[in-house]
Amino acid sequence: MEGGGSIVAFRRTSMLARHLSQATAPCQSLLEGSPCLQYVPPEANSEKPVFDVAVMRALMDGHHVELRDKVFGLMRKDKLFHLKTVRDTTYLSADYGDTLSEQREKTLQRVLYLRDSGMFKGAVTNSPEQFLNTSAVFECMALFDHSLSIKAGVHYHLWGGAIMFFGTKRHHDKWLKPTEDISIRGCFAMTELGHGSNVRGIETVTTYDPATQEFIINTPCESAQKYWIGGAALHATHTIVFSQLHIGGKSEGVHAFICQIRDSNGQICPGIKIADCGHKIGLNGVDNGRIWFDNVRVPRENLLNSVADVTPDGRYESAIKDPDQRFGAFLAPLTTGRVVIAVAAVYQAKVALATAIRYGLSRRAFSLTPDQPEVLLLDYPSHQQRLLTLLARTYAMSASANKLKQIYAFRTPADAKTIHVLSSGLKALLTWHNIRTCQECREACGGQGLKTENKVGQLKAEYDVQLTFEGDNNVLMQQVSKALLADFLSALRRKKPIKSVGLEYMNGPRPIIPANLGSALLRNSKFQVTLLQLRERDLLERLAADVMDRVSRGTPQAEAANQSYQLAGRLGEAFAEKQVLEAHLETENQQTGPLKDILGLLRSLYVLSVVDESPVFLRYGLLSSTQSQIIHQEVAALCRELRPHALALVESLGIPRDFLGPIASDWIEYNSYKNEQA
Amino acid sequence: MEGGGSIVAFRRTSMLARHLSQATAPCQSLLEGSPCLQYVPPEANSEKPVFDVAVMRALMDGHHVELRDKVFGLMRKDKLFHLKTVRDTTYLSADYGDTLSEQREKTLQRVLYLRDSGMFKGAVTNSPEQFLNTSAVFECMALFDHSLSIKAGVHYHLWGGAIMFFGTKRHHDKWLKPTEDISIRGCFAMTELGHGSNVRGIETVTTYDPATQEFIINTPCESAQKYWIGGAALHATHTIVFSQLHIGGKSEGVHAFICQIRDSNGQICPGIKIADCGHKIGLNGVDNGRIWFDNVRVPRENLLNSVADVTPDGRYESAIKDPDQRFGAFLAPLTTGRVVIAVAAVYQAKVALATAIRYGLSRRAFSLTPDQPEVLLLDYPSHQQRLLTLLARTYAMSASANKLKQIYAFRTPADAKTIHVLSSGLKALLTWHNIRTCQECREACGGQGLKTENKVGQLKAEYDVQLTFEGDNNVLMQQVSKALLADFLSALRRKKPIKSVGLEYMNGPRPIIPANLGSALLRNSKFQVTLLQLRERDLLERLAADVMDRVSRGTPQAEAANQSYQLAGRLGEAFAEKQVLEAHLETENQQTGPLKDILGLLRSLYVLSVVDESPVFLRYGLLSSTQSQIIHQEVAALCRELRPHALALVESLGIPRDFLGPIASDWIEYNSYKNEQA
Repeated sequence: MEGGGSIVAFRRTSMLARHLSQATAPCQSLLEGSPCLQYVPPEANSEKPVFDVAVMRALMDGHHVELRDKVFGLMRKDKLFHLKTVRDTTYLSADYGDTLSEQREKTLQRVLYLRDSGMFKGAVTNSPEQFLNTSAVFECMALFDHSLSIKAGVHYHLWGGAIMFFGTKRHHDKWLKPTEDISIRGCFAMTELGHGSNVRGIETVTTYDPATQEFIINTPCESAQKYWIGGAALHATHTIVFSQLHIGGKSEGVHAFICQIRDSNGQICPGIKIADCGHKIGLNGVDNGRIWFDNVRVPRENLLNSVADVTPDGRYESAIKDPDQRFGAFLAPLTTGRVVIAVAAVYQAKVALATAIRYGLSRRAFSLTPDQPEVLLLDYPSHQQRLLTLLARTYAMSASANKLKQIYAFRTPADAKTIHVLSSGLKALLTWHNIRTCQECREACGGQGLKTENKVGQLKAEYDVQLTFEGDNNVLMQQVSKALLADFLSALRRKKPIKSVGLEYMNGPRPIIPANLGSALLRNSKFQVTLLQLRERDLLERLAADVMDRVSRGTPQAEAANQSYQLAGRLGEAFAEKQVLEAHLETENQQTGPLKDILGLLRSLYVLSVVDESPVFLRYGLLSSTQSQIIHQEVAALCRELRPHALALVESLGIPRDFLGPIASDWIEYNSYKNEQA
Repeated sequence: MEGGGSIVAFRRTSMLARHLSQATAPCQSLLEGSPCLQYVPPEANSEKPVFDVAVMRALMDGHHVELRDKVFGLMRKDKLFHLKTVRDTTYLSADYGDTLSEQREKTLQRVLYLRDSGMFKGAVTNSPEQFLNTSAVFECMALFDHSLSIKAGVHYHLWGGAIMFFGTKRHHDKWLKPTEDISIRGCFAMTELGHGSNVRGIETVTTYDPATQEFIINTPCESAQKYWIGGAALHATHTIVFSQLHIGGKSEGVHAFICQIRDSNGQICPGIKIADCGHKIGLNGVDNGRIWFDNVRVPRENLLNSVADVTPDGRYESAIKDPDQRFGAFLAPLTTGRVVIAVAAVYQAKVALATAIRYGLSRRAFSLTPDQPEVLLLDYPSHQQRLLTLLARTYAMSASANKLKQIYAFRTPADAKTIHVLSSGLKALLTWHNIRTCQECREACGGQGLKTENKVGQLKAEYDVQLTFEGDNNVLMQQVSKALLADFLSALRRKKPIKSVGLEYMNGPRPIIPANLGSALLRNSKFQVTLLQLRERDLLERLAADVMDRVSRGTPQAEAANQSYQLAGRLGEAFAEKQVLEAHLETENQQTGPLKDILGLLRSLYVLSVVDESPVFLRYGLLSSTQSQIIHQEVAALCRELRPHALALVESLGIPRDFLGPIASDWIEYNSYKNEQA
């Protein structure tokens, strides 16, 4: 097998040698413009696609493919979206060298342009089809620039979503129309200086005055100042304020209120104070601000009352009596954010990989022997493993992001728990994957990865926020484990079969992994599912035993879970990675022919690289060292097999070439002196 | 043990509960300025240091402690270095929200200020003491801002270093004085658009004209344009040009020439074309540019002739006949860059950790049970493992960076190979560690990590370049393995004991790891050295077998090594991590008392976290799964033990508080509305 790979590699090298000898033609003067190291495009260094790229692209995007192309077309039409034109190519990107205020102003103008183009029609309509439609538009916006999608997302998803889901008819009637057409501009004031992930701890206090039937919102101290509020620094006119509600001296927990913060001329309203969050490592197109409320009065009707209400005479009313349950029901709609973030993360990993792989198919470095031509980066086995394992993961995660979106779009109340656990685990897994992928791709592009116009390096800074907003990733993974543990312990206690988010297989016997792992078995999907189930099950059983052991020695359960963090973190990861495999398989199984075959290769590389990199299999004896060595080698073999398909696979990701940095195209032409603006 | 830890944790929690109950005093109005969530400084949440912080700091800095304080003091004296003053604290930092041209201009002015303050006296004098002196100044500059140290480093280390090491007396006499006082401004044109790490492939061509006794430097094609040349875009007047030298139609390989590119008024010289590299993800204080040479003539004396020369009548002369050896000798001085980068990387990891740990000792999130106060971040065992393992690594790596600096400063020609291998391995290991640490610390600071004024998030972008400049990290690690493999195979062939960079232990028997690993053994330094030696040895033997096996099946050796990339990469890492341990031990063994004890704990956490995270020990059967589980738990135990010392350990890192972002100090006061500028 290795020998075979070697011959293939050699044949390729000779082919490349021919390419290069044609491409290398020494010349005299730089002014003649005939380079000696000619740009040979990735296409010339790749095989023809063996599968239908358009079909694969539709599969990756999942829905609304035409709409996506329409959004890209709209952006191409307006200079607001153009970074630079070199010869006949216009590159679409925000300019990350712009000043803070330029970036903010341009981002707003881009949102308004897309509104004027009708892209947000129905954006605050609560229907599955509409959710997917809006998602497609937002995914294209994020491909252009994260600030653009976040700026619009704060207004439509956070402010608009709060009106839709926390509010009732009175709010819908009054606020949804001006929200859709952006005649008001909303923001979402939940986070405070002193409290982020722990929303229950926020310190803003709201009381009720029956005499005037108004709520009085107050920032009692500096740590209660609202912080990171997107849109607050400059553009927002209204906000949703999250606040402790005190009624008759009793605290009823966190509730949300509508409050105007600026008038239609942009003047800050009385009682409101605002400051800028200032320059950030990325997302500078979003004007994050801080807000203080000095006993600001809002009408009683401004309480978003889907879960609880206050009567005109000041009685607190809620159908949900338990404060914990009420808080849970109240915050449930916030899962939208995690769904959207998980999806956006995968798309950015696609941008990074499309860039780095195209560059790796057009850039050479070092000769193996002095008389040979330099080797194409992607023909280095090490480079293949760096990038192709991440490409395989991105494909599988793309399937899981699409599945999550569908589950979320067509959700029923019974799905609440599944969505909470799934969105938590996938948000954490996919955003970490994105940052890792962007970092690896930046390094794989060398110095070119550092130029912001090439995007790949800048993506890290733009998307880093995903790791901690809408729930810190580590906290989310612990929440996943907590939910699985609770279900497991409850089944144990009740001596009933376990029913949980995909844990039903645990009611069957523990599988046995064969000692001899051949390539065929390693690439068998049933075996792969078993392998990832085995890890999840083992970690869950270990976590339960570990926590119970600590409890039996006198540690309170919450602290015991805290101390078992090592297992809990790994369990969250194991859960999410297994979910990704299952989603990928669902997609794969609906295909036929070469497309199915290639998805199978990607799946195998996904699973085996996950197993290869996870310390858990060996640490807990789920695999022997011999087995793990075979898997390690199989990862390299799969990378070799996927190499000829690398270009077709990145072309299928649905990222138009002009939305990638110039480094993904003819970078020698792009850098030619004649194309320099004076 | 676990029970004991739990009790300690509980005692701490009660202590904290008291703190918090004192700190929490509800108040009414935001205008009174008395916050309900009071800032409790890290000192109040920590034990008193059990070791002498000043002594530890001197150990970490290694040399020139007073000089460092002097440099910090100089920066404090001039507004050029001030970011913001809030109450009585002035924070020192570059403003990363400045425009590109502001950042470049301020960076230049800061360099000139430090020159005027005498900080670069003797900077281009070739003596060990002077090298260490200059290093200390540069390390302090990098603590302020990476652009500042790189801007000055390009001039003094690259340009000045090239004059010192590639040049001879005629160059020293003419160029060193104006270099020291910056009456000329140098840059260093090695990298081209088409060739970075592979310097031998550059395409710039220089010929010789005996009639005028001049060299003619030419950029024959666009891929040969000089790229990323720091200083070229705006400020540099002179450059070192790396070029192929063609003499009498024969190529003599890469040589370096001095060439003026701007006159003293800043006008670009005839025949030179310059373009800007533009906006980057970081380091925007450095004006990277691109240079084209249109048959530019320079005097014969401008060839830097330490290794080879051309006679007036045009004969090529070199004492080193073999072109490979000549190229090696020629580039040897470039190791300076790798040494300096490795050291700078560790310092930035210190900045990130000092910030995140101080914040983790002053920020709380979530209560374990509803009636308890929120838990301090660093009292979460998971948070301890995230940060304290990286702190332990940073301590150990600091020792290795100091050792590398000493070896380099006092080098003899016999040390060339050691320095090449050591600086390659440590540059890669320490810079990857730095980026990982900055990322982890950014996440550990939550949203605050995203504000550029808090530095920790911005550091990632500023230092990312380290991973690929002066040699791509992956390439460097392969070079380490290649050197070790060559020594190993040569010893095998000659049937002689191996002599290499620290591989002599391989002449002894292969050690046996006891089945039962108790805490005492795990913390034993001899055992730890054995463990890391065993891994290095095993990987080297496997790599040799793997390569030889491929060769025996007909694969050429270079390609065989290429295909064995999985083992080669791990071997480079194993080598570097073992070197780090040995350096730490050398430092530790010179200490006594509590300081030695704490260094011992750090060493154990360093080694065990390395073993815990490396997949190699289990994959190749060097440890059993039971043994690895014990090590996994010991890592957690060590983190618990180090928690009380965390503050003292970051205070010993030698980073003044005012050089950290505001988040490391009273972040509630800093964010108070009254401190907002209008």
